[in-house]
Amino acid sequence: MFMNKLKKFGLIAGLSVLASPAMAEVPGETAFIFNTLLFLIMGAFVMWMAAGFAMLESGMVRSKNVATICVKNVALFSIAGILYYVVGYNLMYSGVDAGFIGEFSMWSPDDSAYLGETPDFGEGDTYAAGSDWFFQMVFVATAASIVSGTLAERIKLWPFLGFVALLTAIIYPIQGSWTWGGGWLSEMGFADFAGSTIVHSVGGWAALTGALILGARSGRYNAAGAPVAMPGSSMPLATLGTFILWLGWFGFNGGSQLALGSAENAIAISQIFINTNLAAAGGVVAAMMASQMVYKKVDLTLALNGAIGGLVSITAEPLAPTGGLAILIGAVGGLLIVFSVPVLDRLKIDDVVGAIPAHLVCGVWGTLAVVLSNGEASLVTQIIGIASVGAFVVVTSSIGWLVLKAVVGIRASEEEELLGLDKSELGIEAYPEFSRS
Amino acid sequence: MFMNKLKKFGLIAGLSVLASPAMAEVPGETAFIFNTLLFLIMGAFVMWMAAGFAMLESGMVRSKNVATICVKNVALFSIAGILYYVVGYNLMYSGVDAGFIGEFSMWSPDDSAYLGETPDFGEGDTYAAGSDWFFQMVFVATAASIVSGTLAERIKLWPFLGFVALLTAIIYPIQGSWTWGGGWLSEMGFADFAGSTIVHSVGGWAALTGALILGARSGRYNAAGAPVAMPGSSMPLATLGTFILWLGWFGFNGGSQLALGSAENAIAISQIFINTNLAAAGGVVAAMMASQMVYKKVDLTLALNGAIGGLVSITAEPLAPTGGLAILIGAVGGLLIVFSVPVLDRLKIDDVVGAIPAHLVCGVWGTLAVVLSNGEASLVTQIIGIASVGAFVVVTSSIGWLVLKAVVGIRASEEEELLGLDKSELGIEAYPEFSRS
Amino acid sequence: MFMNKLKKFGLIAGLSVLASPAMAEVPGETAFIFNTLLFLIMGAFVMWMAAGFAMLESGMVRSKNVATICVKNVALFSIAGILYYVVGYNLMYSGVDAGFIGEFSMWSPDDSAYLGETPDFGEGDTYAAGSDWFFQMVFVATAASIVSGTLAERIKLWPFLGFVALLTAIIYPIQGSWTWGGGWLSEMGFADFAGSTIVHSVGGWAALTGALILGARSGRYNAAGAPVAMPGSSMPLATLGTFILWLGWFGFNGGSQLALGSAENAIAISQIFINTNLAAAGGVVAAMMASQMVYKKVDLTLALNGAIGGLVSITAEPLAPTGGLAILIGAVGGLLIVFSVPVLDRLKIDDVVGAIPAHLVCGVWGTLAVVLSNGEASLVTQIIGIASVGAFVVVTSSIGWLVLKAVVGIRASEEEELLGLDKSELGIEAYPEFSRS
Repeated sequence: MFMNKLKKFGLIAGLSVLASPAMAEVPGETAFIFNTLLFLIMGAFVMWMAAGFAMLESGMVRSKNVATICVKNVALFSIAGILYYVVGYNLMYSGVDAGFIGEFSMWSPDDSAYLGETPDFGEGDTYAAGSDWFFQMVFVATAASIVSGTLAERIKLWPFLGFVALLTAIIYPIQGSWTWGGGWLSEMGFADFAGSTIVHSVGGWAALTGALILGARSGRYNAAGAPVAMPGSSMPLATLGTFILWLGWFGFNGGSQLALGSAENAIAISQIFINTNLAAAGGVVAAMMASQMVYKKVDLTLALNGAIGGLVSITAEPLAPTGGLAILIGAVGGLLIVFSVPVLDRLKIDDVVGAIPAHLVCGVWGTLAVVLSNGEASLVTQIIGIASVGAFVVVTSSIGWLVLKAVVGIRASEEEELLGLDKSELGIEAYPEFSRS
Repeated sequence: MFMNKLKKFGLIAGLSVLASPAMAEVPGETAFIFNTLLFLIMGAFVMWMAAGFAMLESGMVRSKNVATICVKNVALFSIAGILYYVVGYNLMYSGVDAGFIGEFSMWSPDDSAYLGETPDFGEGDTYAAGSDWFFQMVFVATAASIVSGTLAERIKLWPFLGFVALLTAIIYPIQGSWTWGGGWLSEMGFADFAGSTIVHSVGGWAALTGALILGARSGRYNAAGAPVAMPGSSMPLATLGTFILWLGWFGFNGGSQLALGSAENAIAISQIFINTNLAAAGGVVAAMMASQMVYKKVDLTLALNGAIGGLVSITAEPLAPTGGLAILIGAVGGLLIVFSVPVLDRLKIDDVVGAIPAHLVCGVWGTLAVVLSNGEASLVTQIIGIASVGAFVVVTSSIGWLVLKAVVGIRASEEEELLGLDKSELGIEAYPEFSRS
Repeated sequence: MFMNKLKKFGLIAGLSVLASPAMAEVPGETAFIFNTLLFLIMGAFVMWMAAGFAMLESGMVRSKNVATICVKNVALFSIAGILYYVVGYNLMYSGVDAGFIGEFSMWSPDDSAYLGETPDFGEGDTYAAGSDWFFQMVFVATAASIVSGTLAERIKLWPFLGFVALLTAIIYPIQGSWTWGGGWLSEMGFADFAGSTIVHSVGGWAALTGALILGARSGRYNAAGAPVAMPGSSMPLATLGTFILWLGWFGFNGGSQLALGSAENAIAISQIFINTNLAAAGGVVAAMMASQMVYKKVDLTLALNGAIGGLVSITAEPLAPTGGLAILIGAVGGLLIVFSVPVLDRLKIDDVVGAIPAHLVCGVWGTLAVVLSNGEASLVTQIIGIASVGAFVVVTSSIGWLVLKAVVGIRASEEEELLGLDKSELGIEAYPEFSRS
């Protein structure tokens, strides 16, 4: 397992941080504390993204489904955390050995003293094992959050949570083991620094598969096949959610440097913060300008998704680009959002919050864009990585959705959908005192 | 005072961090910076919980009382901070000497240079005194926040703030001195790592006392004594508040390790983050399943309070349990919430946001659960601690409430209550443009 | 440039941190990491203030303008970031040499390795250049956020963003170079630790100039000249925004210490956290009490602006005051808010969110208040700094507003204003399902 960790360090960071001569100046235990602190603080920022998705989705769905989307977001974060502890982490990181899958076993810290023993801070340890678990756990929750937005307003609560369990315990960890766990894709040199493919496209593929199997919301496309607008209930909550995600992304990308124990790492994380911010900014500006040109109006939801698209686009390689290139990569992401939303509508794929353009389309783009700045990445390998992860997630997700559909049913009835899931599933209203116009 | 600090370190962390041989590797000034940084960052996270309580309570009250609950939350955080500076901190931490109370005096940093002197970083100093003050201050604000939720929708603004002053300047610091200040309970070996009893049950007892003296909201129980639902005005804001609390709790429990200057501490804080997250997750899942089984529906507010209940339950001992035990401790907390809400209703104790189940019931449970993992804790001592703190807070709070009731009155008139406190107390509306259904 | 950095350190912190003998104990690379980490974490906190302004303003405008204020806040943060990269940073910090302006050139990190070279961590380096860029960038965004609140509900979207570009690329950096860039004001000894003048009054002057040129909202003052209340749409969102700003301000002021690599710095940042919190608390309590005495009601928006006013007031010198003095400085700020709001109304200056009292009036007060605790500051120099920055921003902003007015027009038509900017500018509604009363 330690070899895998070493590989993970080297491959993900695109830098041989452990071999850096500069690192020698920071004493081992001090570096251990810095590295652990990075995981904990950046992990807390990523945890906060769960609130971002909850607010973004609460703002983008109609008020009759808001309470249900809230309960889904709280529940999926809980389920993801428990299952990643019970099975996911070791399936992703333990004993992968250049292969396709890790071990089925519960995670436990090597170095924990809190079962009555002395803490095991050995010579080779560079961070607390628990802090790494925490940081990886919040990533799997992100993948699950993506799915809930696309499928909102018509999927039943418990079957959705059943899929979350499958995704976070099995699907995500297995494909994650291929790259971050030191598996076959990492051997090939597939480069995905913080997860444009491994986190965002995985959530996107699972969402797309679910959207196809579940079908569009009732009335979403009229008799002529044209989309009918179903505007979200609260634009400020959607905006808040986007700002939360933007803040959390500093943790997502910055923490993925995986070490803070040397000047080199501190410099790298600074560059990652800059590029993350500039890519988001580029996505916003590009999406706003494209929206103005195409639709003659600035669309707030496109501006918000432009930020997210820019962030997803830079996630596969937030370290190597200059700031100028980061703006461009993010801007292309913003444009991809504006132009893929109508494509999805033409295909009658009903994506309530626009998660497929933001996380899947931009996730693919970001993974390809790695070759623009990272000389060690190969376009062919990047395509192999994108395609193999995509194929695996589509197949396993399809099986999951179809089994759930056959056994318990996944879709609310048309009456329930019209009434709203809040009343039908929860028996409450999100805004009981505000009448609908 | 330094001896008390040493005791505090040793007792609260359950570990003799200062004696750790591993610590020798981190130079003194570097450890000083790490420890100070921990207090500041984790303290900022806990400060953020004030926003969490404000949003949770804003979402759980009816719209006619939302602006008032907002002003209460902003004001109580301000009052708590000022009074903890003027009197609270030294009453809790200065000169307690195994006794029942500290000193009545204004806090000032021993080591501050900013009165024209050179900063006093001496050999024995392990953190900046100011950072410790900041971290302790945000805790007292949490205790006050708990009270505002229970008593919402019928208590008058200024008398409530008067009680906050009493609680934060006198009641909280005195009982806090017994354990964290090195007083008699710490001598007995009472173990409460981050405050299941000392913070959460204190807020809960004060809230319960207030609820009994203030009485239920008008119309809350019908002629037959059955509760009448008064649904909260915004479920997404309640959800946001819960996520904010969840995030803040990493600071609440993680910062209570009180040191980051050694690998041992870094490992401990990592374990605390894991257990804090898993207990919350366990609380959510247990509350949702119990809610589904008992009421045949998932109740969003029970799921949210399940998270808080899980967090409160692990707060007395977030370090010693394994992750699996943390899930169980949190899950029991979640169940306690589901089953104590109807008990309160049967007793006609009107708790608007469910703070008594979450903070008092789970606070007691969490304090008892310490004995499951911490071999040095004794069940008898834990019960003595819970009971003595409870008795003290109930008696002093009762005096406070009754004096306020006699002198200025604490309850809004029935007309004011029906009109809503926003109009009667503030003369504004929280949502002036949204008509009520 | 390095000399300017040294000056910046010395002048802003009011302490010769680099010469501190205590600093020798922390090895160079460890200090480098601490300093960089401070910029990154505190910068992330300040970035979060963008969400705070967005929520505060969303809550304070009427629902028909909420989506527009959201898009403005997302867009201005994006534009500010890009332009500060392309031109602003070097205009502020590069080659100022005791003068009036820096260089027109794109920023690039001296020490970045990520263009194919080895990271340049030299002997004299004390932090990653990129982390400093990130920290300074979030400050310029704050200045721009202030303008959007004052001018809400009647300014057109794209012209507003044009002004943001001027402000963040040219106006803010040039005046910033005078003090923080090592220019003429710093030579004179002008003291503004974290930007009461340089950030907050700059935003305030630009907002005031814009408000005068743009005029009041239609119907804001009746035939007799008396103000007509136009209450904001969501008090909980305004409250949330205030709490976000409060949290972010720990980064704003704490990070402005610019170093964490010694015990002295850690002690200083602790004192800054304390004073920042106490000044905000003082502002809240003073504004609430004044509001109660003057208007016989507590006004929530005054309480919230009291917090912001207290925070702005302590920003010019959050380090030197004792906690007691910080409470007083903040309380005066809170009173200034309560008493300047009616003055603005008498002058028919329509400031939608009260940003001019909070950021301009309290910014001036805070800059003057430096002399109460910082023995090296001179009242005359402080006045010169306030006046010269004010004159420069008023003149350049006026030119900008007038050119924009002449070329593209800055004000929505009366019909658009009555309809609401959301429908006229964006073609959407922020709350499409909630009818207006």
